[in-house]
Amino acid sequence: MTTAAKAEYKALTNEEAEALVKNLGLISETELSVSEIGDGNLNLVFKVTGVNESVIVKQALPYAKVVGESWPLTLDRARIESDALIHAAKYVPHLVPKVLYTDSILAVTIMEDLSSHTIARKGLIESNAYALLARDIGIFAARTAFYTSDFYLHPFEKKRLVQSFSNPELCKITEDLVFTDPFFDHETNDFPEELRPDVEQLWSDAELCREAGLLKYQFLTQAEVLLHGDLHTGSIFVKEDSTKVIDPEFAFFGPLGFDIGQFIANIALNYLSQHHHSQEPFNRKETQDKLLKTIEETWKTFENEFSRLFREESTEPFAGTDGVLENLLEKTFTDAIGFAGCEIIRRTIGLAHVADLDSISCSDVQHYLKRKALKLGASLIKTRSSVTTIEQFTSRVRGA
Amino acid sequence: MTTAAKAEYKALTNEEAEALVKNLGLISETELSVSEIGDGNLNLVFKVTGVNESVIVKQALPYAKVVGESWPLTLDRARIESDALIHAAKYVPHLVPKVLYTDSILAVTIMEDLSSHTIARKGLIESNAYALLARDIGIFAARTAFYTSDFYLHPFEKKRLVQSFSNPELCKITEDLVFTDPFFDHETNDFPEELRPDVEQLWSDAELCREAGLLKYQFLTQAEVLLHGDLHTGSIFVKEDSTKVIDPEFAFFGPLGFDIGQFIANIALNYLSQHHHSQEPFNRKETQDKLLKTIEETWKTFENEFSRLFREESTEPFAGTDGVLENLLEKTFTDAIGFAGCEIIRRTIGLAHVADLDSISCSDVQHYLKRKALKLGASLIKTRSSVTTIEQFTSRVRGA
Repeated sequence: MTTAAKAEYKALTNEEAEALVKNLGLISETELSVSEIGDGNLNLVFKVTGVNESVIVKQALPYAKVVGESWPLTLDRARIESDALIHAAKYVPHLVPKVLYTDSILAVTIMEDLSSHTIARKGLIESNAYALLARDIGIFAARTAFYTSDFYLHPFEKKRLVQSFSNPELCKITEDLVFTDPFFDHETNDFPEELRPDVEQLWSDAELCREAGLLKYQFLTQAEVLLHGDLHTGSIFVKEDSTKVIDPEFAFFGPLGFDIGQFIANIALNYLSQHHHSQEPFNRKETQDKLLKTIEETWKTFENEFSRLFREESTEPFAGTDGVLENLLEKTFTDAIGFAGCEIIRRTIGLAHVADLDSISCSDVQHYLKRKALKLGASLIKTRSSVTTIEQFTSRVRGA
Repeated sequence: MTTAAKAEYKALTNEEAEALVKNLGLISETELSVSEIGDGNLNLVFKVTGVNESVIVKQALPYAKVVGESWPLTLDRARIESDALIHAAKYVPHLVPKVLYTDSILAVTIMEDLSSHTIARKGLIESNAYALLARDIGIFAARTAFYTSDFYLHPFEKKRLVQSFSNPELCKITEDLVFTDPFFDHETNDFPEELRPDVEQLWSDAELCREAGLLKYQFLTQAEVLLHGDLHTGSIFVKEDSTKVIDPEFAFFGPLGFDIGQFIANIALNYLSQHHHSQEPFNRKETQDKLLKTIEETWKTFENEFSRLFREESTEPFAGTDGVLENLLEKTFTDAIGFAGCEIIRRTIGLAHVADLDSISCSDVQHYLKRKALKLGASLIKTRSSVTTIEQFTSRVRGA
């Protein structure tokens, strides 16, 4: 009796990535070139290019590398990521890269090349404005949420999807790095000594820690909708006439307000950083005003689109009952403000920072702005219930 | 090449049930007798008896029969039930029947025979009191909840268990029959014409329907702890010195307040029915006082035991943060009151009634008490946030 060789994971070489694309006929040209363009921390990213066509071959690595440390990390995240992209493409095909091929054993996804776009974080740090960004992200969050909610899906299908997107290892990264470590004196935290008094004040703020604990519990227990799970400005490609959401490897069923909260937090961090990046006062004000408009338009688009879908396409009998939608949106908004506060804090003193603030070379300015960020984040978490409109949120950001 | 015959489900005959017990050596005697003692609606229940020993062979049927209708129902519930019993036995071995054998293909669980006990509902209808009941159910609910919560389990283990106890078909029965149909003019509802005006008032109560919708949404989305899922007095065996919780085929991860809410609702329904069952006014008062004490002691035991475990055995960093436990218990209590309200309403006008009320032969008295139940249930759902102590709950029941 013979046993066929079992297909096994191995990290691809440039040549193997190119051969895979060629053999699959994903590019019809015969002369191809290949380069590995990933940062090598979590994934290999090969760009395979002909004269007129190109595709991206993304392969998960079986470990994560952060600040020199390396720990094992499930390859299953490649399946989650491609499944989430394919699922999103049903409802917002124009807002995600097209998936051309997946192989769950090799942990490979081959997808549309988006090199014509820029990472939103980079563009925003350069003080560029993107007219479509707010509307596109609002639509993305509303549709991917509504169509995976109990208001739309049959309960059997919802529960099947919850199982299929169970994502313990990547959720734990968020549970630790967003919701836990920054609120304790934990070794993963990363901040300059000059900020220590501010950070210690944060750790000793009993009300803040209690509320952060409650937000973490919501993240752990409330399986409302399929989330992107990591919707910061580094997960969004933009150009003038197009927005593409990428990298949903953190996708799982969680609280409805989480994606929007993370997104507006990252816009708020960019807003703070513009005190430095926009050198001309007039330009700075214009750039900052546009950022606050982006936050407001994102929430309003999300709210309008989610409400429209809820009214037009709900299958849940209680969707016709007065107050159910309103109550859900209220809870979602409050949660989003709280999640935004956690994101602002963890991006300032936690393990994973944002270039918006860290790229400020003058350390006095950087520390000054990080102090503002910490105060803003803490106040949002503690008083989120009293922030009831998106304009109240942006005025908090403006006043920070 | 030959293929071994695949093991397949078939409903057991008396002889096969007896042979199974004998072949497994679960009873050492050689002369056995067998009788099928189930009601045949959902499961076959064989009692296999020797002179000194006996065991129960429970086999799930691939359908459910209610009021003459028959619909297919997953056999996987036998696995869920035996897994839940085995899991509970880790933390409250004295409060569940001992599982002796399971076969997931035959959907069979063989367990300890509890014939020496009485079903609590039956005993309570006969106005008996059970001194251990409140304390045992409080301990059962607290321990099975805490040890499956995010405060105790590693997040990977929690998420593994959530998947393993995904129970879409049985959850849908609860979603429909407890949380939806009774609040709409649905064909599954079952009430005498005399109650129609009261029921129509309930359907047109916008506030009630909104709040019931929100409770349903919590049931659908909040995966806090492993629940029994059907903890009414028909799922509890009692005798003077022993309590055993049976039939956890509805087990799944849901909101922490659900089991306790269902239990106290069923005690409250029995309280109402005692207006009839206890004929002597003095005895009636004594019986009813004991029932309210049972409700109070159940919640207090639950709260004390859950708090003790939280303080002594939590692995969650935020468990040490002031206010986290208090906030959780507050939410849980409010939820429990709301879930109790839903249970009281559905047991009065929904598909599955309780014998406590339905066995009252005088229809005027029965309708009178059912009207009280409807009003009590509706008021609990609508004003659950203002019921802040268990004594306020029992005084609502007393005043109904």
